[in-house]
Amino acid sequence: MTAPIDFWFSIGSPYTFLAVMRLPEVAERAGVEVRWRPFDAYAIQAEANDSPFADKPLKAAYMWRDIERRAAKFGLPLRLPIPYPLADRAVANRVAVLAAKEGWCPAYAIATYRHWFVDREAAGSEPNLSASIKEAGQDPARVLQQASTAAGAEALDAATREAKEIGLFGSPSFVADGELFWGHDRLEDAIEWQHNLDQGNPG
Amino acid sequence: MTAPIDFWFSIGSPYTFLAVMRLPEVAERAGVEVRWRPFDAYAIQAEANDSPFADKPLKAAYMWRDIERRAAKFGLPLRLPIPYPLADRAVANRVAVLAAKEGWCPAYAIATYRHWFVDREAAGSEPNLSASIKEAGQDPARVLQQASTAAGAEALDAATREAKEIGLFGSPSFVADGELFWGHDRLEDAIEWQHNLDQGNPG
Repeated sequence: MTAPIDFWFSIGSPYTFLAVMRLPEVAERAGVEVRWRPFDAYAIQAEANDSPFADKPLKAAYMWRDIERRAAKFGLPLRLPIPYPLADRAVANRVAVLAAKEGWCPAYAIATYRHWFVDREAAGSEPNLSASIKEAGQDPARVLQQASTAAGAEALDAATREAKEIGLFGSPSFVADGELFWGHDRLEDAIEWQHNLDQGNPG
Repeated sequence: MTAPIDFWFSIGSPYTFLAVMRLPEVAERAGVEVRWRPFDAYAIQAEANDSPFADKPLKAAYMWRDIERRAAKFGLPLRLPIPYPLADRAVANRVAVLAAKEGWCPAYAIATYRHWFVDREAAGSEPNLSASIKEAGQDPARVLQQASTAAGAEALDAATREAKEIGLFGSPSFVADGELFWGHDRLEDAIEWQHNLDQGNPG
């Protein structure tokens, strides 16, 4: 056994409930030693909110490192840093809406994220855009022409209005039988929820 | 098989990468059907940010429902709604810092969260405070007296300064060998990281 884990927590945080209650058992099972480190997270957050940009570099750096670790955990290749934010998010998502309507959305979404995160080609821009459409078995000229029309823009707006009406506030979100799950790290929970429904078990 | 899951996503969101890449396999394994629903999450977020309180009821409602589902998943009892936010967070955390110094922090933290989330007694207030200290084997009169001194306040401030210096921005956080993991849903990742180190495997 090497050094202990530091568990930093503030009483008052609702989500901290889940960590406080589960940590002893999970750590014990793994044979990992834990040092409990109470602090006042609210004081840090309040200070960070006083200067609106102060906390962003920290959180952004954390996000990329977290994505990197999770990708490694799941065996997903990626090469950071990648272009971010996207210069043309609208086109990327208009194509996705068209793809969803025509039935080739997963292939396109996976291809465009792979080109973005592995080849460092921004989604929504060339060469990513045409390559991803082609890999989904479609003709880039046709798709890009349709996505550039007013109808193409309106289809994305309509999807966004619908998302807003059902109370979504971020991506990715999963809705299973009216239950909202937010965040990539609720993927398994959402699938499990639906799976239990399909098996006739209460959620 | 009943209705499909709706997978709402926006190309441009970094974390969405992890969901797009993993969803097909996880859904397939569970025999769950997925409908891919692209939308513009940024448009919704930008609008919500224009009116600073507009998105909070949505997110707060989501948080409690999410905590409820996760508690059920892990077999943790709780009875929502509970008093929130806490009227006296400072005392709750000053006692925690003293407990950490004296070696009875886990017992106290678990007791106070249980009284808060199951008995609906606010942490940091009576009767939760004295009951939780007692359940951790300590004398409430002694502990509360020490926590109310200037030294008791300063000990919490010092812990918070240290947390800030190492770049923490929220509770709960885990630090394993210099790696920061943020959020109750990274508990397993943090433990696994340390466990692999202890086994001599690269993280």
